[in-house]
Amino acid sequence: MTIALIVLAAGQGTRMNSDLPKVLHRIGAAPLVAHALAAGRALEPEQVIVVAGHGAEAVTKAVGKIDPEATVVLQAEQLGTGHAVAQALPTLEGFDGRVIVLYGDTPFIRPETLEGLAESTAAVAVLGFEAADPGRYGRLVAQGNALDRIVEFKDASDEERAITLCNSGVIACDAVLLTELVAGLNNDNASGEYYLTDIVAAARAKGLSAEVVTCPEEETLGINTRAELARAEALFQARMRAEAMENGVTMVDPDTVWFALDTYIGRDVVVGPNVVFGPDVTIESGAQIEAFCHLEGCHISRGATVGPFARLRPGAELAEDVHIGNFVEVKNSILAEGVKVGHLTYLGDADIGEGTNIGAGTVTCNYDGVFKHRTTVGANAFIGSDTMLVAPVTVGDGALTGSGSVITEDVPAGAIALGRAKQMNRPGLATKLFEMLRAKKANMKKGS
Amino acid sequence: MTIALIVLAAGQGTRMNSDLPKVLHRIGAAPLVAHALAAGRALEPEQVIVVAGHGAEAVTKAVGKIDPEATVVLQAEQLGTGHAVAQALPTLEGFDGRVIVLYGDTPFIRPETLEGLAESTAAVAVLGFEAADPGRYGRLVAQGNALDRIVEFKDASDEERAITLCNSGVIACDAVLLTELVAGLNNDNASGEYYLTDIVAAARAKGLSAEVVTCPEEETLGINTRAELARAEALFQARMRAEAMENGVTMVDPDTVWFALDTYIGRDVVVGPNVVFGPDVTIESGAQIEAFCHLEGCHISRGATVGPFARLRPGAELAEDVHIGNFVEVKNSILAEGVKVGHLTYLGDADIGEGTNIGAGTVTCNYDGVFKHRTTVGANAFIGSDTMLVAPVTVGDGALTGSGSVITEDVPAGAIALGRAKQMNRPGLATKLFEMLRAKKANMKKGS
Amino acid sequence: MTIALIVLAAGQGTRMNSDLPKVLHRIGAAPLVAHALAAGRALEPEQVIVVAGHGAEAVTKAVGKIDPEATVVLQAEQLGTGHAVAQALPTLEGFDGRVIVLYGDTPFIRPETLEGLAESTAAVAVLGFEAADPGRYGRLVAQGNALDRIVEFKDASDEERAITLCNSGVIACDAVLLTELVAGLNNDNASGEYYLTDIVAAARAKGLSAEVVTCPEEETLGINTRAELARAEALFQARMRAEAMENGVTMVDPDTVWFALDTYIGRDVVVGPNVVFGPDVTIESGAQIEAFCHLEGCHISRGATVGPFARLRPGAELAEDVHIGNFVEVKNSILAEGVKVGHLTYLGDADIGEGTNIGAGTVTCNYDGVFKHRTTVGANAFIGSDTMLVAPVTVGDGALTGSGSVITEDVPAGAIALGRAKQMNRPGLATKLFEMLRAKKANMKKGS
Repeated sequence: MTIALIVLAAGQGTRMNSDLPKVLHRIGAAPLVAHALAAGRALEPEQVIVVAGHGAEAVTKAVGKIDPEATVVLQAEQLGTGHAVAQALPTLEGFDGRVIVLYGDTPFIRPETLEGLAESTAAVAVLGFEAADPGRYGRLVAQGNALDRIVEFKDASDEERAITLCNSGVIACDAVLLTELVAGLNNDNASGEYYLTDIVAAARAKGLSAEVVTCPEEETLGINTRAELARAEALFQARMRAEAMENGVTMVDPDTVWFALDTYIGRDVVVGPNVVFGPDVTIESGAQIEAFCHLEGCHISRGATVGPFARLRPGAELAEDVHIGNFVEVKNSILAEGVKVGHLTYLGDADIGEGTNIGAGTVTCNYDGVFKHRTTVGANAFIGSDTMLVAPVTVGDGALTGSGSVITEDVPAGAIALGRAKQMNRPGLATKLFEMLRAKKANMKKGS
Repeated sequence: MTIALIVLAAGQGTRMNSDLPKVLHRIGAAPLVAHALAAGRALEPEQVIVVAGHGAEAVTKAVGKIDPEATVVLQAEQLGTGHAVAQALPTLEGFDGRVIVLYGDTPFIRPETLEGLAESTAAVAVLGFEAADPGRYGRLVAQGNALDRIVEFKDASDEERAITLCNSGVIACDAVLLTELVAGLNNDNASGEYYLTDIVAAARAKGLSAEVVTCPEEETLGINTRAELARAEALFQARMRAEAMENGVTMVDPDTVWFALDTYIGRDVVVGPNVVFGPDVTIESGAQIEAFCHLEGCHISRGATVGPFARLRPGAELAEDVHIGNFVEVKNSILAEGVKVGHLTYLGDADIGEGTNIGAGTVTCNYDGVFKHRTTVGANAFIGSDTMLVAPVTVGDGALTGSGSVITEDVPAGAIALGRAKQMNRPGLATKLFEMLRAKKANMKKGS
Repeated sequence: MTIALIVLAAGQGTRMNSDLPKVLHRIGAAPLVAHALAAGRALEPEQVIVVAGHGAEAVTKAVGKIDPEATVVLQAEQLGTGHAVAQALPTLEGFDGRVIVLYGDTPFIRPETLEGLAESTAAVAVLGFEAADPGRYGRLVAQGNALDRIVEFKDASDEERAITLCNSGVIACDAVLLTELVAGLNNDNASGEYYLTDIVAAARAKGLSAEVVTCPEEETLGINTRAELARAEALFQARMRAEAMENGVTMVDPDTVWFALDTYIGRDVVVGPNVVFGPDVTIESGAQIEAFCHLEGCHISRGATVGPFARLRPGAELAEDVHIGNFVEVKNSILAEGVKVGHLTYLGDADIGEGTNIGAGTVTCNYDGVFKHRTTVGANAFIGSDTMLVAPVTVGDGALTGSGSVITEDVPAGAIALGRAKQMNRPGLATKLFEMLRAKKANMKKGS
């Protein structure tokens, strides 16, 4: 079956109290719309159309990054879900498969659920859920899976209000029929909006079948406030943590490990308390991540140890048995097997050869105020503490730099590079200096 | 109406198991007594009197900082709440408004509640609450709001014990009457203490009216153990987090953001996991605080980004679009618009001009062992990595310091300052050195 | 009474999905088996025997560290608990006291519970618990404390399944009798395993008495999955936190303080949010640990302040009133009274004299690529910012090192040591350099 997705992402989200369009608020370090797109993409749709409205420019840009093959169409005025879908349909011109309409602010829907919806042979399939507290949701009046009609809460009789099967708003419908039904929608209602769900009644009126496909309520969770966003984030994290534990990851305190949507952690990795995974982190089996680490865009190989208090930024690649210690930052750098960076170091735009030891306080001076440059250090080198590696610069295999050296020129393999003044001791001078300073202080106090 | 506050803060808090007086234990980075004082101050009282006893010296000092206009009086012996109030009354000589007596270990009382109490026209108004589990609280025997009497639990009949309206101990009474009633208290009871609440019976005996004003039980929460302190802190934090979300702050994990009593965060600020706000932090809309930050006494302007792993200490002022990166500490320093401090830096007692870039490993050497000195850096300057700025010192606009330089003298605008030895490469020497060291190690092993 | 312990630690723990033997997974920074051993050691047993199987080499090594006097015996094939005990019994040859058999994956059993079991005068004593949800546990059929028999769930009648008193598997029995009973076990059951609990039936068949000793269900909690491990860790932490609060420790957020099995914290210590205690930490009364600290193998004396963002590693000893600030790492170093290490420093293998101030960015260069060396700094010295102390090296009392100096030779008491190049200012050169770089960038953009 060929599938197309329409993702509605035009809402303002007034109750978020934010300048950011609602679907760009984040869960698992990814915009809400990325979650919806990820679920939908799992069905390998032929086309993906995102309907943007509020903050359309920002949404278009974000979608371009998340899913470059998606098409973004504009809903200039927010006239309801039916109107939103109408904006997307021209882009589907000629497509005759099944269309699934889902929502950019509903991040928890599972691919399996969408598949079930796509596979329904009814003219219109509606995703429903048994609500613990149905409240003001629209009710699905159905006989088994056969959907008779959708009743809005305000129009429902007492008997209908007693129904707990509720409408998620997600629907599937063949493209040609959907186009016809949407074209027939009107906005004769209190809100003056075109409601997508009205297509069910229209299909039924034509004698066509409608079906309910159900999923757990949790999957239909939408987000309208920051508090709901925080709860959704907590739910997302709880899932990721449980899954990681199933996969053989040990976390000392799972509640203090934050995953991104795409975090991958291998078996027998031990993760200490308070570790934040930003996007695009992969960790091989048997690595160890100590407490207080912040990782994004990095790869950590088997046997590597990281932290505590380490930060790996995008482009940090750690080969096997690399050790990253405390107060160390690594960015856009490739560290070969067994490299050790123990303390207080910034490695940016660097290639470090295997077995090399980087002393405490080392900095790759990668920025000259205008350009960034690269540092290369060979294998089994020894970079002394507080070495400044002024890029572009190369230190050869087995070379050594003296503590406190500023390395501005290449260092040949096996060489020692020193750049420091000779130490001079001035006997008795400290005693005199402190006597003088303390006397000054005593005088100041006397004077005051 | 003119109001005076008496805050009882003399208790030892035996169950805290602490040398610190109970009212100086902290919630939201502020002593318990500061919370009570903040609630009371909202009523703009003419006089505020704190009754100190245990640890009076420390309490007096703390109150002096929190509320310099408050008067602290000493209750030398702890002979009960009535006796405590008696120590405060001479200070109110001549005051003829309404007196509210509240407690230094009851941090959650709201100003609105105290206002309600102050506005009562009864001779004595008592703050009561419906207790979920009344336990051993004193019971308020009342007809509607009309308070008949207060019965201590141990003196209560079964019928009275069934009452769930309980006594918080907080009262309001006109000053002159209060003085008269307190003077009439006796200590003919099992504890041998003078109980403030006995004034209700005394007023009633005089045919005067007494009224109950109620508040939610939570507001009357007192603190007697460290576990209760921790629970109160959790309650305080939950409130602050909810309020921040309402105001448009995004927190990835609200449970790991700790607020102080006076934290102010603007709309659309994003706060990562694990951020600690000490006292006196203000953050403008649209700033971003990454994970693992520790902030106190600082101001962060619109568009600024901070962290992860950043510490801002008192006097740190960040103008718009300032960037503070990882392992950076800023204290008593003013950073103008667009300043970037990316990595491993200590800025103390400094003024940094707009657009200036501070390299990794920079330190303002602000302390000479006796005095602290100030560092000034102009606009659009470039401070090379590992620059030591030995204060007092000034670097001019657009100047550059070479990596690893120790700057002891002023640098003119537009100049390059260098203070480093020339690099020398000694070919082959590292190879020899490591051969020698490894041979020595091998010998040592053989020898052992 | 003389006691011997047999700790069963041979299981693979398939559901842990791990290469690590189950009993070596950790709670409170200590292997599960260490918890069981600690509980058992409290009874001062004459002999302790650990039965290892899966990962026996690793278990043997770990037990050697935890409890060097314990004997590890091998169960080469895992043929059941009875078989496991049979492997241990030869080591008890000649011992005629009471044997307690417990489990290496059951970390919460209390010494008091084991004492109760040891003191039972019945031939066989079995540890039972009232299960909230008895599920598939074996049931204890008993009259009061008199144990009639143990019924496996699958063999139990409906009436027996209604019993909520369940079998923990922990037993006590006199050594001679145990040897006789274990020798008589057979494996005629569905699993083909020798079950230790079958000794109860065997004892009863001989007309001997069996007794149930009960404990709370929590104590019998075994660990089979990572999720259970995480829950057990949470339970362990909750206990440690509660105990610390009882003892007069203030924690701003107890849920974010992680204890090790042996953490000791004195009264009136204040611990901020997010503090991790690894093994072997002792903190004296009145010290202060700020947020974001990672401590292991260290001692912190009265009045010392640590953090935020500090890491103390094994061998860090802080005397009274020492101050450790942010982004500071201390390892194997003794800091005398009043030493201050405020910022961005690595002290490794050092002795620092009282009252000495260590400037920001100081590093003890303790490693030459092959050997580690020691640094000694006297009392009341002043180590300037960014000083490299190239060990082995000694700085005398009251000496001062200039900022940015590399100290390779000893500094006499009272002397000033400087090792830095003179600053040179090159007027106008920065302006020219940036003009050139920006022009180059502009050209590149034009060209692209």
